[in-house]
Amino acid sequence: MQFACGSAKRPAYRRSVPVATAAGAFGQSFPERITTVSATQLPAASPLGLHRVLEPAGVLPQAAWRLDPRPEIWPDEVRVRVQRLNLDAASFRQLLEASGGDPDKLKAAVLEIVASRGKMQNPVTGSGGMLTGTVEEVGPQSSLGLEPGDKIATLVSLSLTPLVITDELANWDGKSEQVPCAGHAILFGRSIAAKLPADMSAELALSVMDVCGAPALTHRVVGAATTASPVVAIIGAAGKSGSLSAAAARKAGAGTIIGVVPHEAEAEMLRDAPAADDLHGLVDEIVIADARDPVGVSSAIASAGGPADVTVVCVDVPGCEGGAILSTAQGGTVIFFSMATSFTAAALGAEGVAADVTMLVGNGYVPGHAQLAIDLIRTEPGVRGMFQRRIDEHS
Amino acid sequence: MQFACGSAKRPAYRRSVPVATAAGAFGQSFPERITTVSATQLPAASPLGLHRVLEPAGVLPQAAWRLDPRPEIWPDEVRVRVQRLNLDAASFRQLLEASGGDPDKLKAAVLEIVASRGKMQNPVTGSGGMLTGTVEEVGPQSSLGLEPGDKIATLVSLSLTPLVITDELANWDGKSEQVPCAGHAILFGRSIAAKLPADMSAELALSVMDVCGAPALTHRVVGAATTASPVVAIIGAAGKSGSLSAAAARKAGAGTIIGVVPHEAEAEMLRDAPAADDLHGLVDEIVIADARDPVGVSSAIASAGGPADVTVVCVDVPGCEGGAILSTAQGGTVIFFSMATSFTAAALGAEGVAADVTMLVGNGYVPGHAQLAIDLIRTEPGVRGMFQRRIDEHS
Repeated sequence: MQFACGSAKRPAYRRSVPVATAAGAFGQSFPERITTVSATQLPAASPLGLHRVLEPAGVLPQAAWRLDPRPEIWPDEVRVRVQRLNLDAASFRQLLEASGGDPDKLKAAVLEIVASRGKMQNPVTGSGGMLTGTVEEVGPQSSLGLEPGDKIATLVSLSLTPLVITDELANWDGKSEQVPCAGHAILFGRSIAAKLPADMSAELALSVMDVCGAPALTHRVVGAATTASPVVAIIGAAGKSGSLSAAAARKAGAGTIIGVVPHEAEAEMLRDAPAADDLHGLVDEIVIADARDPVGVSSAIASAGGPADVTVVCVDVPGCEGGAILSTAQGGTVIFFSMATSFTAAALGAEGVAADVTMLVGNGYVPGHAQLAIDLIRTEPGVRGMFQRRIDEHS
Repeated sequence: MQFACGSAKRPAYRRSVPVATAAGAFGQSFPERITTVSATQLPAASPLGLHRVLEPAGVLPQAAWRLDPRPEIWPDEVRVRVQRLNLDAASFRQLLEASGGDPDKLKAAVLEIVASRGKMQNPVTGSGGMLTGTVEEVGPQSSLGLEPGDKIATLVSLSLTPLVITDELANWDGKSEQVPCAGHAILFGRSIAAKLPADMSAELALSVMDVCGAPALTHRVVGAATTASPVVAIIGAAGKSGSLSAAAARKAGAGTIIGVVPHEAEAEMLRDAPAADDLHGLVDEIVIADARDPVGVSSAIASAGGPADVTVVCVDVPGCEGGAILSTAQGGTVIFFSMATSFTAAALGAEGVAADVTMLVGNGYVPGHAQLAIDLIRTEPGVRGMFQRRIDEHS
């Protein structure tokens, strides 16, 4: 039977269930604070995961305060044995600051969030991250195309993914957003997961897929620009989503690419990063500026060939809306990927300076996004080098 | 002399200055808590108003905690004698709730904000509103095309407009977001203001111009849709921005227009509202649903001819992101006009349900926006009736 209902008050957590791989830790007890509806009240499956929402009732899993992370799957779900979480950069930074950099406090904070919410969604930033793992059980009605044993990355946010951690994060040093982790996670009927490529480490693939919405949307917007050879400014160009977006912009036909970085160390990273075609660097112009300083950053971009036809905001600090808007030409587009973006600051900021710019909320999902990002890593040695260096520094 | 520097420590507020119209209340004392830089440190004028930012230094006026609202103008500025503030709906609602509906507390809250910040920006919502008044003095370098005596509405947000209130809001009953008010406000070099039309009341014009970005952007997006006769869903269609956006969508060639409202009373308002062409109603289908209930609202829109190619969010309550995304067809567009929109809820919500939708931050500025909205009011009796009824109910 696919969906093991159990028999009484809180059956799901205590039962051992048949699993496809043998790694299961399902005999372990689960955090007591997570209670679920009783077996007799089980809701019908929803492709959006509504049946896993415990409170408040009726909202989508991303908006829920608390999810039901029971290991037994509904007919269209997939259960994944988790190997690694990759915390969203904004979330990790907030947690790091809140814990004063103390690894034990940081670890306790993550465990507390997952235990109380049934998912890893930072209550302050609202953001999550993603994970890698091995498919353990696939419901008969799942349409994700996965099989038990597949090594995958989830491409929906941790902020809506039911999750249980069973190892107290014993193998995490608390110094990086990449979190070795044992436990299980659930994918819904309408979800997104990608098989990990065989030609790169899981760590690299996860790190790439985590931000793969950014290069995909950048590629689409730059490709659709009405200006020939549009000027593209990437704010935070030496970061993960920034460097991939720069490469995607080039692939989509960008003219001048201006990379904005906060200091010389990142400028040097960019300078050392070649593009695949051996003609360009990853970016054409490098500008050192504080993205939170609208006047400073827009002046710097202007003097480097701007204003930009497309500005891509990839830095995870608050207060970058005004600078991005001022750096963009009338009729241009700003893509906000930073989870630290303030909606009202963007809306009112543009109005306040009479800026006729199209402002896009960086949707993390564009069809084919994971493939595009992985292909960029394969073909762009400069970007791959920057990702690899980041991973090496943390290991 | 255009810019009266004054002579000593806090000269600007106490001096009487020559003004173009005689309405000035400049001899009055100003709130003591607002201090300014001394005359010897006066910064150069900036078209963006940077010279009016007191703290934190270097940010744009919208992002500033505190502005310098001194009445003396820099050479490219315009001073306006204020007649009426129109508080942003989200801000008014928040203030109303925080004051428990007590008009005196509400009034005190608004006065406190303006006195301490030098602008009417709600610290909780971040939003402001707009104002009407009479141009009092125009700097010799102003390019806004205004003359003393012009009756205007400012089309930049109050959240970045230097403002002083001098009448303690004595004529405001605290029951409506339209606030009769005496005092002065400042427009910067790069700002937006529209002369009030002669064929309608200032109250109506202000009410229309307050939301004129919404119909303008809706018109642009619907007009550019790749689908012929696109289905347009307006969430909050009986409201100000919603009803104007519905009319703008029709003008731009929308096929079916679905109006979503929260209850029967608003449905009736919509049902009674004809379109100018006598062929349609203002909307074609009326759906009663809670916009915060993603499954409920998307199911209702689907059964009324959806999913939508363009969904316009015009309700000022939090939590509408998921419903708007789920109501929109793959490849479609969501325009978020509500200041209660959460950036992360939108970004992660779309990703979480694998929705390939373009999500736009509703920019309040589109060239020609005020004219388009005023023209819609002139030609669409249904919309004008709804606006007028709203005004009559509050007077």
